[in-house]
Amino acid sequence: MNRKMRMGMVGGGIGAFIGAVHRMAAGLDNEIELVCGAFSSDPERSRQSGEMLYLPASRVYPDYRTMILEELKLPEGERMDFISIVTPNHVHFGPAKMALEHGFHVVLDKPMTLNLQEAVDLKEVIEKSGLLFCLTHNYTGYPMVKQARDMIAEGKLGKIRKIVVEYPQGWLNVLLEATGQKQAEWRTDPARSGAAGCIGDIGTHAFNMAEYMTGLKVTEVCADLTTFVEGRKLEDDANLLLRFENGAKGVLHSSQISVGEENNFNIRVYGEVGGLWWHQMEPNTLEYTRPGEPKLMLRTGVGISAASSQNTRLPAGHPEGYIEAFANVYRNFAKTLRSRLKGETPDPSYLDFPGVESGLRGMKFIDTVIRSNQSTEKWTKFV
Amino acid sequence: MNRKMRMGMVGGGIGAFIGAVHRMAAGLDNEIELVCGAFSSDPERSRQSGEMLYLPASRVYPDYRTMILEELKLPEGERMDFISIVTPNHVHFGPAKMALEHGFHVVLDKPMTLNLQEAVDLKEVIEKSGLLFCLTHNYTGYPMVKQARDMIAEGKLGKIRKIVVEYPQGWLNVLLEATGQKQAEWRTDPARSGAAGCIGDIGTHAFNMAEYMTGLKVTEVCADLTTFVEGRKLEDDANLLLRFENGAKGVLHSSQISVGEENNFNIRVYGEVGGLWWHQMEPNTLEYTRPGEPKLMLRTGVGISAASSQNTRLPAGHPEGYIEAFANVYRNFAKTLRSRLKGETPDPSYLDFPGVESGLRGMKFIDTVIRSNQSTEKWTKFV
Amino acid sequence: MNRKMRMGMVGGGIGAFIGAVHRMAAGLDNEIELVCGAFSSDPERSRQSGEMLYLPASRVYPDYRTMILEELKLPEGERMDFISIVTPNHVHFGPAKMALEHGFHVVLDKPMTLNLQEAVDLKEVIEKSGLLFCLTHNYTGYPMVKQARDMIAEGKLGKIRKIVVEYPQGWLNVLLEATGQKQAEWRTDPARSGAAGCIGDIGTHAFNMAEYMTGLKVTEVCADLTTFVEGRKLEDDANLLLRFENGAKGVLHSSQISVGEENNFNIRVYGEVGGLWWHQMEPNTLEYTRPGEPKLMLRTGVGISAASSQNTRLPAGHPEGYIEAFANVYRNFAKTLRSRLKGETPDPSYLDFPGVESGLRGMKFIDTVIRSNQSTEKWTKFV
Amino acid sequence: MNRKMRMGMVGGGIGAFIGAVHRMAAGLDNEIELVCGAFSSDPERSRQSGEMLYLPASRVYPDYRTMILEELKLPEGERMDFISIVTPNHVHFGPAKMALEHGFHVVLDKPMTLNLQEAVDLKEVIEKSGLLFCLTHNYTGYPMVKQARDMIAEGKLGKIRKIVVEYPQGWLNVLLEATGQKQAEWRTDPARSGAAGCIGDIGTHAFNMAEYMTGLKVTEVCADLTTFVEGRKLEDDANLLLRFENGAKGVLHSSQISVGEENNFNIRVYGEVGGLWWHQMEPNTLEYTRPGEPKLMLRTGVGISAASSQNTRLPAGHPEGYIEAFANVYRNFAKTLRSRLKGETPDPSYLDFPGVESGLRGMKFIDTVIRSNQSTEKWTKFV
Repeated sequence: MNRKMRMGMVGGGIGAFIGAVHRMAAGLDNEIELVCGAFSSDPERSRQSGEMLYLPASRVYPDYRTMILEELKLPEGERMDFISIVTPNHVHFGPAKMALEHGFHVVLDKPMTLNLQEAVDLKEVIEKSGLLFCLTHNYTGYPMVKQARDMIAEGKLGKIRKIVVEYPQGWLNVLLEATGQKQAEWRTDPARSGAAGCIGDIGTHAFNMAEYMTGLKVTEVCADLTTFVEGRKLEDDANLLLRFENGAKGVLHSSQISVGEENNFNIRVYGEVGGLWWHQMEPNTLEYTRPGEPKLMLRTGVGISAASSQNTRLPAGHPEGYIEAFANVYRNFAKTLRSRLKGETPDPSYLDFPGVESGLRGMKFIDTVIRSNQSTEKWTKFV
Repeated sequence: MNRKMRMGMVGGGIGAFIGAVHRMAAGLDNEIELVCGAFSSDPERSRQSGEMLYLPASRVYPDYRTMILEELKLPEGERMDFISIVTPNHVHFGPAKMALEHGFHVVLDKPMTLNLQEAVDLKEVIEKSGLLFCLTHNYTGYPMVKQARDMIAEGKLGKIRKIVVEYPQGWLNVLLEATGQKQAEWRTDPARSGAAGCIGDIGTHAFNMAEYMTGLKVTEVCADLTTFVEGRKLEDDANLLLRFENGAKGVLHSSQISVGEENNFNIRVYGEVGGLWWHQMEPNTLEYTRPGEPKLMLRTGVGISAASSQNTRLPAGHPEGYIEAFANVYRNFAKTLRSRLKGETPDPSYLDFPGVESGLRGMKFIDTVIRSNQSTEKWTKFV
Repeated sequence: MNRKMRMGMVGGGIGAFIGAVHRMAAGLDNEIELVCGAFSSDPERSRQSGEMLYLPASRVYPDYRTMILEELKLPEGERMDFISIVTPNHVHFGPAKMALEHGFHVVLDKPMTLNLQEAVDLKEVIEKSGLLFCLTHNYTGYPMVKQARDMIAEGKLGKIRKIVVEYPQGWLNVLLEATGQKQAEWRTDPARSGAAGCIGDIGTHAFNMAEYMTGLKVTEVCADLTTFVEGRKLEDDANLLLRFENGAKGVLHSSQISVGEENNFNIRVYGEVGGLWWHQMEPNTLEYTRPGEPKLMLRTGVGISAASSQNTRLPAGHPEGYIEAFANVYRNFAKTLRSRLKGETPDPSYLDFPGVESGLRGMKFIDTVIRSNQSTEKWTKFV
Repeated sequence: MNRKMRMGMVGGGIGAFIGAVHRMAAGLDNEIELVCGAFSSDPERSRQSGEMLYLPASRVYPDYRTMILEELKLPEGERMDFISIVTPNHVHFGPAKMALEHGFHVVLDKPMTLNLQEAVDLKEVIEKSGLLFCLTHNYTGYPMVKQARDMIAEGKLGKIRKIVVEYPQGWLNVLLEATGQKQAEWRTDPARSGAAGCIGDIGTHAFNMAEYMTGLKVTEVCADLTTFVEGRKLEDDANLLLRFENGAKGVLHSSQISVGEENNFNIRVYGEVGGLWWHQMEPNTLEYTRPGEPKLMLRTGVGISAASSQNTRLPAGHPEGYIEAFANVYRNFAKTLRSRLKGETPDPSYLDFPGVESGLRGMKFIDTVIRSNQSTEKWTKFV
């Protein structure tokens, strides 16, 4: 087992955004190698993508079904160990299910599926398979997010009272999907993206972050969704009030029409005896304040928690970014997979990657938000 | 009329916070002089305060009633021209009404009154008196707030779609009112503060800012108020969804239990073709972005609107702050008052100070938020 | 003596920048009132300025000589207590000397005089007079500058090793003095400004700050001065290496041609066990770091030194700025003057305003820098 | 040639810092694969490092000489294409020379060699070999550095007047080398690091950045070097005045004893009609200001130059960091190498990686600074 973990990829062909990110993230720590792929629903495009990636032609497949079946025929040391699915949402369930049923572990881009029912079904498939499943809620891979989670768990903030999480973007302020822009097209198309636009694409990250960082579950939601751009089929702005299980209150707003915002994902957590702020666009800093004391600027690489250190590669002042955080998800997954393949118990510190429960809660969140938006009642229960 | 405007003050004795701010703000531009005061409900404390302020003993009064009646006996060039009321909310209506009914113009700290009915009544008194009335929503005095308002009015953002306004503080994270802290005592006491705590004290600033900057009116509110600190009588945290008359959506959250926040009042306005951000704690900068272009950092003193320039005293890079913004309210009021006393038409640019309409809307806002909080309906109309 | 201190002003007529700042600063704390002035070398302009300031015509003088002589004729409780001189540098020595010789205390804008000889002479006059003298190195009035000074004095940084102080501006990047701009005209004219341009105008602030904050004296200088704008008579850019008495090293650079810089005055001090950073354009924050620990963001109003608190007017998060810092200089001077007039020993905490020694060192600094610039030796002694 | 470029590594074994960075950077873009290495001067440590990297035992060598000779015996499609040298400075010249003389292209960490003579000699070897040579001045790989360079070249700043470049760190504020810390040990040891400490380690980056970004050459230097930590053998602080060929002036200061500084590398360039600021610790932003206009915040991914775009992987708001910048150097080198191996003319845009001239100038810079420090003359010519 002294070899890299072998990854096959579904989606992520020439021109795709997130596929290339997955490949850089998977490869960063020298733990994973890409061995095969079905990179596009267009076989020729898949072939070209594989060539660009210096894969042997024999390991570039016209579709995921063929890939799964053909790889199975290869000897164990040679065939892919796991499949990474980086397609639009409507092509999540199919390849994940088939891969699992044929013995391949799965890494899947978020949100988990096209709709809640698929998520429930996939959960069953995963559990039945007994295989590893990783959902790339990549933002939780940042070291200072783990630092925040650990501080909250240790009680450095006391009982949590309020959570403000926001994720505004501005790139969809016009009907970009009408211009042929691929990213905009599928993300605003209910057939490929699901029932939610902004909430599915980025709101789920904000929701997942709030629950991951604080360890608290949302119990009720009050949502106001809007489609600002004429002709758009899904909402492009979402404002929510939240209630958490321990009595904490929350605000979550996300948007794709907030002109001037790039990817301005931020979270603030206020407890009885401390407050934390984290800004995705300056991810190496975590601000922490105790009542009546000066704010502390915690930084990657300076006196941070074990988990935070483990997910940091560089000394303080050498900025780590989005790809590095994404790579932490893959690295942790790969380390766990290696232990598994060796028949060893995985190091618990590497189990820190999002799995089926995060995926399922994300789909329930989308469902609850949409129901709340349609309701005249103030509060809709999260079920 | 070649003299400073003469101010009498109600409240603001030794130990008060906002009274001293009012005096610094009023005096900053050499347009107003303090000539008399009833600085405390305790006559001895009032006397001491007057002495500390180098006022002649004859112009320091034991209570506002005496002050109004005694000042009336002085000749016109000598007696106070206007009264500035800087007491807790339950002592707003009384002195304002009496001053107006005795011919004195009025400057009043916000919120306008203890409750909506008093506000409605005061409006009637003001209109009947025909005198000037200024409500010190001081944050609208910042030059870059005026710059933002002017840019929005000129269409630099296009149609406004979304407004996010937040005003978190952390100073009331424990039961400070039980320790004898004066500021905390009255602000958390319904008898002196009114039906709202956080919403009345700072939420009204946030609301006023949103309407002032955009020129849009709130039409519906969905509120979730919380009292986090045990034993407190008024809410210390408020989260709101807003709807505006033109279809714009909004989020307003304010808090006094957000540990680590000083006075972190911020507003973001997103329109079809531009976005603006303003941060009270770095008030000399206004961030402005157009789609696909780099963010512009507009600064006090560099190529800004006429109104913004008029409310700026220093070249760029010489920070102006809270007192200067507050002073703009007083300066504009004083300039208008001088014109009035001279029988001239005031320069329209100086009419830019908050008046009775701002005050009344603020009280309606408090009322609507409280009704919304008690309702199970998602939306409560702003009436 | 239960009255405000009475100020007469020389210079600062209509259109001047720093005169208005002095008036706002002097008046902010209700301790000083402007009672008379000779606001311009043009008597008519002086008269108009006085009228604009609501002074009685009888107290507005055509020139400083007349003012000093006429004020002397008034009874002690009525005449000015001190004179504030806010003219260009070539009109510093004359009025200061005459005022002191006629028994008036003096506040003087920096740099102290037109040249070093005048400074030496003025020092003698001051000492002979036994009167109070205040030089408005206003930047040392900021509360967080005092906080830094106190922390260094208490050893929070250990032995100081390195000081980096910078003061770039960009407003003189073209020959502005040729356009009739008054501020540019006199500041670039050797006859009115002295032998130095940039170094005299702002470099002295940087130098004074380094010595004030650390308590260390500069012993050697290596200077490279440049006049970048063609036709300009004085240098507009200055880069210096410094050596301090305790072995600390320093860098000082200041400029008026650094396009894009407003008034970007910053200082960093590095000691054996701590580092400090202060930025004039965000003056309410002081960054402090100990080895291996997170940076602390010290803020006005939160757990700061006694001297820092005493020079702060507002709670944290309510920005104080340039005028407030300037006002601290005047307030401390006025408090000291009041004690003096009452025959009391002044509270030592109020003695914290710059005096003749700061002024003289500033003039020696200018002299040393110019000598160093002309030398081919690396180091020029500070004498 | 449809394969990745094959890299052999010298140095970078278990526990090394920069070797791991080189591997992540080389691998990020799927253009380079690590095929062999001599990772340590200790053969057993080299073996373990190779195992950790999943290399076949046959390609892990006990020393670089063996590696070069053994790899030569492999067929061309299998053996390494180039060697990456990531050892301390005293082991730069040897392996680089031998690799080049045996036909392997070279990537070399900075500074180029232990001393100037070695650099001159290596230059000759490189030129004689006709092979590719890349020096990893990684900071020039940042997209916004290329953006700045392009803007300056296009005249967006006009004639350059002043350059301020600073690179303070604080990690060597105590005698860390006495504690067994490996990084500190060799960097403060003249036998392994050369004649300069701070100036060689990070000052060369600052110098290289100034010349790279502006296209101007330094002509004269005035240096003041200090060893602050007792017992240290090399300087740990450096302050320099610079003069550039076009008359521009400069300040360069770098330090390893500046407590509180992480890796705070910054550059500001002021021209006649514009100013630029870039901060390594927030590398995705470039500030640009024209006289009298608001500052523009240029960002990776928003309307930037072709070269900047080409070196950017992610949309705006998704932070890219140190590894990504480093990877740009490798990617550009690999693309050029591939063209070369294919017999094609390389795309000029990929020639943007530092080479022998940068390396030689860096060594001359070190030499000049040390001579200047020893001189009593103000200026020392850069030769």
